[in-house]
Amino acid sequence: MATILLIEPSMNINPRLHSFIGSTTGPWEIIESRPIIGAGLPACERLLYLPGHASSPESESGWVLHGATSNERYVTRPEKELLLAKQPALNRPEANCAVLIPIKKNAAWWALTQDERRQIFEEQSHHNQIGMDYLPAIARRLHHCRDLSESEPFDFLTWFEFAEEHSAEFDKLLARLRATEEWKYIEREVEVRVRR
Amino acid sequence: MATILLIEPSMNINPRLHSFIGSTTGPWEIIESRPIIGAGLPACERLLYLPGHASSPESESGWVLHGATSNERYVTRPEKELLLAKQPALNRPEANCAVLIPIKKNAAWWALTQDERRQIFEEQSHHNQIGMDYLPAIARRLHHCRDLSESEPFDFLTWFEFAEEHSAEFDKLLARLRATEEWKYIEREVEVRVRR
Repeated sequence: MATILLIEPSMNINPRLHSFIGSTTGPWEIIESRPIIGAGLPACERLLYLPGHASSPESESGWVLHGATSNERYVTRPEKELLLAKQPALNRPEANCAVLIPIKKNAAWWALTQDERRQIFEEQSHHNQIGMDYLPAIARRLHHCRDLSESEPFDFLTWFEFAEEHSAEFDKLLARLRATEEWKYIEREVEVRVRR
Repeated sequence: MATILLIEPSMNINPRLHSFIGSTTGPWEIIESRPIIGAGLPACERLLYLPGHASSPESESGWVLHGATSNERYVTRPEKELLLAKQPALNRPEANCAVLIPIKKNAAWWALTQDERRQIFEEQSHHNQIGMDYLPAIARRLHHCRDLSESEPFDFLTWFEFAEEHSAEFDKLLARLRATEEWKYIEREVEVRVRR
Protein backbone atom coordinates (compact mmCIF):
# COMPACT_ATOMS: atom_id res chain seq x y z
CA MET A 1 0.00 0.00 0.00
CA ALA A 2 1.49 3.32 -1.02
CA THR A 3 1.04 6.20 1.39
CA ILE A 4 -0.31 9.29 -0.30
CA LEU A 5 1.78 12.31 0.54
CA LEU A 6 0.36 15.75 0.37
CA ILE A 7 2.96 18.41 -0.26
CA GLU A 8 1.13 21.62 0.46
CA PRO A 9 2.08 24.27 -2.05
CA SER A 10 -0.77 26.58 -1.01
CA MET A 11 0.86 27.33 2.33
CA ASN A 12 3.41 30.10 2.47
CA ILE A 13 6.06 27.76 3.87
CA ASN A 14 9.01 28.67 6.08
CA PRO A 15 11.98 28.12 3.72
CA ARG A 16 13.87 26.35 6.53
CA LEU A 17 11.08 23.81 7.16
CA HIS A 18 11.76 20.14 6.36
CA SER A 19 9.65 16.97 6.50
CA PHE A 20 10.64 13.41 7.38
CA ILE A 21 8.15 10.89 6.03
CA GLY A 22 8.08 7.24 7.04
CA SER A 23 6.06 5.29 4.45
CA THR A 24 6.57 2.84 1.61
CA THR A 25 8.45 5.24 -0.66
CA GLY A 26 11.66 7.23 -0.57
CA PRO A 27 15.38 6.76 -1.24
CA TRP A 28 16.25 5.61 2.29
CA GLU A 29 15.49 2.05 3.39
CA ILE A 30 14.63 1.81 7.10
CA ILE A 31 16.96 -0.82 8.58
CA GLU A 32 15.89 -0.39 12.18
CA SER A 33 13.50 1.86 14.09
CA ARG A 34 13.51 1.49 17.85
CA PRO A 35 12.27 3.39 20.89
CA ILE A 36 15.10 4.50 23.20
CA ILE A 37 13.01 6.45 25.73
CA GLY A 38 9.19 6.34 25.65
CA ALA A 39 7.09 5.34 22.64
CA GLY A 40 8.56 4.46 19.25
CA LEU A 41 7.22 5.34 15.79
CA PRO A 42 4.98 3.06 13.68
CA ALA A 43 7.06 0.61 11.67
CA CYS A 44 7.47 1.33 7.98
CA GLU A 45 9.75 0.50 5.11
CA ARG A 46 11.21 3.64 3.68
CA LEU A 47 12.09 7.22 4.58
CA LEU A 48 11.81 10.41 2.59
CA TYR A 49 13.58 13.57 3.83
CA LEU A 50 12.70 16.70 1.92
CA PRO A 51 12.33 20.47 2.28
CA GLY A 52 8.81 21.84 2.70
CA HIS A 53 5.65 20.82 4.52
CA ALA A 54 4.34 17.34 3.77
CA SER A 55 1.31 15.83 5.40
CA SER A 56 -0.14 12.37 5.30
CA PRO A 57 -3.87 11.54 5.35
CA GLU A 58 -4.82 10.30 8.81
CA SER A 59 -6.19 7.04 7.45
CA GLU A 60 -2.82 6.03 6.06
CA SER A 61 -0.09 4.20 7.93
CA GLY A 62 3.34 5.71 8.40
CA TRP A 63 4.31 9.01 9.96
CA VAL A 64 5.36 12.57 9.14
CA LEU A 65 7.61 14.71 11.33
CA HIS A 66 8.38 18.38 10.68
CA GLY A 67 11.27 20.57 11.83
CA ALA A 68 12.92 23.83 10.86
CA THR A 69 16.63 24.54 10.80
CA SER A 70 17.31 27.69 12.78
CA ASN A 71 19.93 29.85 14.48
CA GLU A 72 22.09 27.97 16.99
CA ARG A 73 20.96 28.32 20.59
CA TYR A 74 24.12 27.43 22.55
CA VAL A 75 27.36 27.71 20.57
CA THR A 76 29.81 30.49 21.29
CA ARG A 77 31.76 32.23 18.53
CA PRO A 78 34.92 30.08 18.91
CA GLU A 79 32.79 26.90 18.92
CA LYS A 80 30.89 28.05 15.83
CA GLU A 81 34.10 28.82 13.93
CA LEU A 82 35.46 25.35 14.74
CA LEU A 83 32.21 23.74 13.62
CA LEU A 84 32.11 25.72 10.38
CA ALA A 85 35.70 24.72 9.62
CA LYS A 86 35.17 21.00 10.27
CA GLN A 87 31.56 20.09 9.45
CA PRO A 88 30.85 18.41 6.10
CA ALA A 89 27.84 19.00 3.86
CA LEU A 90 24.94 16.57 3.63
CA ASN A 91 24.52 14.34 0.56
CA ARG A 92 28.14 13.28 0.20
CA PRO A 93 28.21 10.36 -2.28
CA GLU A 94 30.06 8.13 0.22
CA ALA A 95 27.52 8.78 3.01
CA ASN A 96 25.25 5.78 2.41
CA CYS A 97 24.12 5.50 6.03
CA ALA A 98 21.90 7.94 7.91
CA VAL A 99 20.16 8.06 11.27
CA LEU A 100 17.21 10.20 12.34
CA ILE A 101 17.00 10.83 16.09
CA PRO A 102 13.79 12.59 17.18
CA ILE A 103 13.89 13.73 20.82
CA LYS A 104 11.53 15.49 23.21
CA LYS A 105 12.85 17.22 26.31
CA ASN A 106 10.80 17.40 29.50
CA ALA A 107 9.07 20.36 31.15
CA ALA A 108 11.93 20.77 33.65
CA TRP A 109 14.34 21.47 30.76
CA TRP A 110 12.10 24.12 29.23
CA ALA A 111 11.62 25.81 32.61
CA LEU A 112 15.39 26.36 32.89
CA THR A 113 16.85 29.71 31.90
CA GLN A 114 19.27 30.11 28.99
CA ASP A 115 22.37 30.16 31.22
CA GLU A 116 21.22 27.02 33.06
CA ARG A 117 20.53 25.20 29.79
CA ARG A 118 23.92 26.21 28.35
CA GLN A 119 25.60 25.05 31.58
CA ILE A 120 24.07 21.57 31.26
CA PHE A 121 24.34 21.38 27.45
CA GLU A 122 27.99 22.26 27.10
CA GLU A 123 29.85 22.88 30.37
CA GLN A 124 28.56 19.63 31.92
CA SER A 125 27.56 17.51 28.92
CA HIS A 126 30.01 18.76 26.25
CA HIS A 127 27.34 18.26 23.58
CA ASN A 128 29.10 20.30 20.88
CA GLN A 129 32.51 18.97 21.86
CA ILE A 130 31.32 15.36 21.52
CA GLY A 131 29.86 16.08 18.05
CA MET A 132 33.08 17.81 17.07
CA ASP A 133 35.14 14.70 17.89
CA TYR A 134 33.42 12.86 15.01
CA LEU A 135 33.87 15.54 12.35
CA PRO A 136 34.26 15.43 9.40
CA ALA A 137 33.16 11.75 9.34
CA ILE A 138 29.63 12.32 10.63
CA ALA A 139 27.55 15.12 9.07
CA ARG A 140 24.72 16.44 11.22
CA ARG A 141 21.72 18.74 10.74
CA LEU A 142 19.46 19.86 13.59
CA HIS A 143 15.77 20.72 13.08
CA HIS A 144 13.64 22.48 15.72
CA CYS A 145 9.99 21.44 16.16
CA ARG A 146 8.85 23.05 19.41
CA ASP A 147 7.87 26.44 17.97
CA LEU A 148 6.21 25.23 14.77
CA SER A 149 2.56 26.14 14.17
CA GLU A 150 1.47 22.55 14.68
CA SER A 151 1.83 20.63 17.89
CA GLU A 152 4.67 18.22 17.12
CA PRO A 153 5.45 15.03 19.08
CA PHE A 154 9.16 15.90 19.36
CA ASP A 155 11.21 19.04 20.12
CA PHE A 156 14.19 18.25 17.87
CA LEU A 157 14.95 16.07 14.86
CA THR A 158 18.64 15.42 14.31
CA TRP A 159 19.75 13.90 11.03
CA PHE A 160 23.19 12.27 10.77
CA GLU A 161 24.89 11.05 7.57
CA PHE A 162 28.06 8.97 7.32
CA ALA A 163 29.79 6.26 5.29
CA GLU A 164 29.23 2.70 6.48
CA GLU A 165 32.87 2.43 7.56
CA HIS A 166 32.14 5.07 10.22
CA SER A 167 29.19 3.19 11.78
CA ALA A 168 31.14 2.17 14.89
CA GLU A 169 32.18 5.79 15.44
CA PHE A 170 28.57 6.87 15.17
CA ASP A 171 27.62 4.27 17.83
CA LYS A 172 30.28 5.76 20.12
CA LEU A 173 28.98 9.29 19.53
CA LEU A 174 25.45 8.18 20.48
CA ALA A 175 26.61 6.30 23.58
CA ARG A 176 28.58 9.31 24.79
CA LEU A 177 25.63 11.69 24.29
CA ARG A 178 23.21 9.33 26.04
CA ALA A 179 25.48 9.17 29.09
CA THR A 180 25.41 12.95 29.60
CA GLU A 181 23.63 15.03 32.23
CA GLU A 182 21.63 16.64 29.38
CA TRP A 183 20.06 13.30 28.47
CA LYS A 184 18.34 13.12 31.90
CA TYR A 185 15.99 15.80 30.55
CA ILE A 186 14.90 13.69 27.58
CA GLU A 187 11.48 12.09 27.93
CA ARG A 188 11.16 10.59 24.45
CA GLU A 189 13.78 9.41 21.99
CA VAL A 190 13.56 7.24 18.89
CA GLU A 191 16.39 5.97 16.69
CA VAL A 192 15.66 5.41 12.99
CA ARG A 193 18.56 3.89 11.06
CA VAL A 194 18.42 4.03 7.27
CA ARG A 195 20.56 3.13 4.27
CA ARG A 196 20.45 4.07 0.60
CA MET B 1 -17.14 44.88 4.72
CA ALA B 2 -16.58 42.18 7.33
CA THR B 3 -13.43 40.12 6.98
CA ILE B 4 -14.10 36.40 7.12
CA LEU B 5 -11.79 34.73 9.59
CA LEU B 6 -10.99 31.10 9.30
CA ILE B 7 -10.06 29.51 12.59
CA GLU B 8 -8.60 26.17 11.58
CA PRO B 9 -9.74 23.45 13.95
CA SER B 10 -8.53 20.66 11.67
CA MET B 11 -4.90 21.53 12.28
CA ASN B 12 -3.24 20.02 15.32
CA ILE B 13 -2.28 23.44 16.66
CA ASN B 14 0.68 24.32 18.89
CA PRO B 15 -1.06 25.23 22.19
CA ARG B 16 1.24 28.27 22.54
CA LEU B 17 0.30 29.70 19.11
CA HIS B 18 -1.62 32.99 18.96
CA SER B 19 -3.08 35.08 16.13
CA PHE B 20 -3.37 38.85 15.76
CA ILE B 21 -6.03 39.82 13.23
CA GLY B 22 -6.45 43.31 11.86
CA SER B 23 -9.92 43.61 10.30
CA THR B 24 -13.29 45.22 10.96
CA THR B 25 -14.09 43.14 14.05
CA GLY B 26 -12.64 42.57 17.49
CA PRO B 27 -12.65 44.15 20.95
CA TRP B 28 -9.67 46.45 20.31
CA GLU B 29 -10.13 49.66 18.30
CA ILE B 30 -7.01 50.55 16.28
CA ILE B 31 -6.14 54.15 17.20
CA GLU B 32 -2.93 54.37 15.23
CA SER B 33 -0.87 52.02 13.05
CA ARG B 34 2.41 53.36 11.79
CA PRO B 35 5.61 52.04 10.22
CA ILE B 36 8.68 52.73 12.38
CA ILE B 37 11.27 50.92 10.21
CA GLY B 38 10.37 49.61 6.74
CA ALA B 39 6.85 48.92 5.49
CA GLY B 40 3.74 49.30 7.66
CA LEU B 41 0.66 47.09 7.76
CA PRO B 42 -2.56 47.71 5.78
CA ALA B 43 -4.85 50.11 7.64
CA CYS B 44 -7.85 48.62 9.37
CA GLU B 45 -10.30 49.41 12.11
CA ARG B 46 -10.17 46.75 14.76
CA LEU B 47 -7.86 44.13 16.26
CA LEU B 48 -8.58 40.64 17.51
CA TYR B 49 -5.95 38.81 19.59
CA LEU B 50 -6.71 35.17 20.27
CA PRO B 51 -5.10 31.79 20.86
CA GLY B 52 -4.94 29.40 17.90
CA HIS B 53 -4.29 29.67 14.18
CA ALA B 54 -6.50 32.07 12.27
CA SER B 55 -6.19 32.76 8.57
CA SER B 56 -7.84 35.30 6.35
CA PRO B 57 -8.90 34.70 2.73
CA GLU B 58 -6.41 36.38 0.42
CA SER B 59 -9.08 38.43 -1.30
CA GLU B 60 -10.03 40.22 1.92
CA SER B 61 -8.39 43.31 3.31
CA GLY B 62 -6.74 43.34 6.71
CA TRP B 63 -3.93 41.15 7.99
CA VAL B 64 -3.18 38.15 10.19
CA LEU B 65 0.06 37.66 12.13
CA HIS B 66 0.97 34.51 14.04
CA GLY B 67 3.40 33.92 16.90
CA ALA B 68 4.05 31.36 19.62
CA THR B 69 5.01 32.06 23.20
CA SER B 70 8.11 30.05 24.06
CA ASN B 71 10.98 29.55 26.49
CA GLU B 72 13.01 32.68 27.14
CA ARG B 73 16.19 32.96 25.09
CA TYR B 74 18.28 35.45 27.07
CA VAL B 75 17.28 35.84 30.72
CA THR B 76 19.45 34.42 33.49
CA ARG B 77 17.96 32.83 36.61
CA PRO B 78 18.18 36.01 38.78
CA GLU B 79 16.60 38.07 35.97
CA LYS B 80 13.80 35.51 35.53
CA GLU B 81 13.02 35.48 39.25
CA LEU B 82 12.78 39.28 39.29
CA LEU B 83 10.51 39.23 36.23
CA LEU B 84 8.25 36.54 37.71
CA ALA B 85 7.93 38.53 40.93
CA LYS B 86 7.07 41.83 39.24
CA GLN B 87 5.24 41.11 35.97
CA PRO B 88 1.44 41.43 35.91
CA ALA B 89 -1.01 39.19 34.04
CA LEU B 90 -2.72 40.24 30.81
CA ASN B 91 -6.39 41.25 30.77
CA ARG B 92 -6.35 43.41 33.90
CA PRO B 93 -9.65 45.36 33.92
CA GLU B 94 -7.81 48.70 34.21
CA ALA B 95 -5.56 47.96 31.21
CA ASN B 96 -7.65 49.63 28.51
CA CYS B 97 -4.70 50.44 26.24
CA ALA B 98 -2.56 47.98 24.33
CA VAL B 99 0.19 48.16 21.72
CA LEU B 100 1.32 45.48 19.27
CA ILE B 101 4.93 45.85 18.07
CA PRO B 102 5.88 43.41 15.31
CA ILE B 103 9.63 43.44 14.56
CA LYS B 104 11.96 41.67 12.15
CA LYS B 105 15.67 41.45 12.86
CA ASN B 106 18.22 41.40 10.04
CA ALA B 107 20.43 38.58 8.75
CA ALA B 108 23.43 39.95 10.67
CA TRP B 109 21.56 39.41 13.96
CA TRP B 110 20.69 35.81 13.14
CA ALA B 111 24.28 35.07 12.11
CA LEU B 112 25.49 36.04 15.59
CA THR B 113 26.12 33.31 18.15
CA GLN B 114 24.12 33.02 21.38
CA ASP B 115 26.79 34.73 23.50
CA GLU B 116 27.10 37.61 21.02
CA ARG B 117 23.31 38.10 20.94
CA ARG B 118 23.07 38.04 24.74
CA GLN B 119 25.94 40.57 24.93
CA ILE B 120 24.07 43.01 22.69
CA PHE B 121 20.60 42.24 24.07
CA GLU B 122 21.33 42.67 27.75
CA GLU B 123 24.92 43.72 28.58
CA GLN B 124 24.88 46.56 26.00
CA SER B 125 21.17 47.26 25.47
CA HIS B 126 19.72 46.32 28.89
CA HIS B 127 16.57 45.06 27.17
CA ASN B 128 15.21 43.14 30.19
CA GLN B 129 16.32 45.84 32.61
CA ILE B 130 14.44 48.51 30.64
CA GLY B 131 11.26 46.40 30.60
CA MET B 132 11.65 45.77 34.33
CA ASP B 133 11.69 49.52 35.06
CA TYR B 134 8.06 49.74 33.90
CA LEU B 135 6.71 46.80 35.89
CA PRO B 136 4.05 46.24 37.14
CA ALA B 137 2.43 49.09 35.16
CA ILE B 138 3.10 47.64 31.70
CA ALA B 139 2.26 43.98 31.05
CA ARG B 140 4.11 42.34 28.17
CA ARG B 141 3.90 39.07 26.24
CA LEU B 142 6.42 38.02 23.60
CA HIS B 143 5.52 35.78 20.65
CA HIS B 144 8.12 34.15 18.37
CA CYS B 145 7.39 33.87 14.62
CA ARG B 146 10.70 32.90 13.01
CA ASP B 147 10.42 29.13 13.49
CA LEU B 148 6.73 28.75 12.67
CA SER B 149 5.77 26.43 9.79
CA GLU B 150 4.69 29.36 7.65
CA SER B 151 6.99 32.08 6.43
CA GLU B 152 5.99 35.06 8.59
CA PRO B 153 6.77 38.72 7.81
CA PHE B 154 8.12 39.38 11.34
CA ASP B 155 10.36 37.53 13.82
CA PHE B 156 8.65 38.71 17.02
CA LEU B 157 5.27 40.11 18.05
CA THR B 158 5.29 41.88 21.40
CA TRP B 159 1.99 42.75 23.04
CA PHE B 160 1.88 45.38 25.77
CA GLU B 161 -1.13 46.22 27.99
CA PHE B 162 -1.46 49.17 30.38
CA ALA B 163 -3.93 51.65 31.84
CA GLU B 164 -4.27 54.93 29.97
CA GLU B 165 -2.63 56.82 32.85
CA HIS B 166 0.61 54.92 32.09
CA SER B 167 0.74 55.94 28.39
CA ALA B 168 3.58 58.40 28.92
CA GLU B 169 5.62 55.72 30.68
CA PHE B 170 5.02 53.36 27.78
CA ASP B 171 6.31 56.04 25.38
CA LYS B 172 9.49 56.32 27.46
CA LEU B 173 9.95 52.54 27.46
CA LEU B 174 9.68 52.50 23.64
CA ALA B 175 12.05 55.44 23.21
CA ARG B 176 14.66 53.80 25.43
CA LEU B 177 14.46 50.47 23.57
CA ARG B 178 14.69 52.16 20.18
CA ALA B 179 17.87 53.98 21.24
CA THR B 180 19.71 50.72 22.04
CA GLU B 181 22.47 48.92 20.16
CA GLU B 182 20.06 45.98 19.70
CA TRP B 183 17.71 48.15 17.64
CA LYS B 184 20.40 48.61 14.95
CA TYR B 185 19.66 45.00 13.97
CA ILE B 186 15.97 45.65 13.34
CA GLU B 187 14.99 45.94 9.69
CA ARG B 188 11.24 46.21 10.08
CA GLU B 189 9.10 47.53 12.91
CA VAL B 190 5.45 48.56 13.09
CA GLU B 191 3.59 50.12 15.99
CA VAL B 192 -0.14 49.33 16.33
CA ARG B 193 -1.86 51.22 19.17
CA VAL B 194 -5.27 50.02 20.28
CA ARG B 195 -7.88 50.80 22.91
CA ARG B 196 -10.91 48.95 24.23
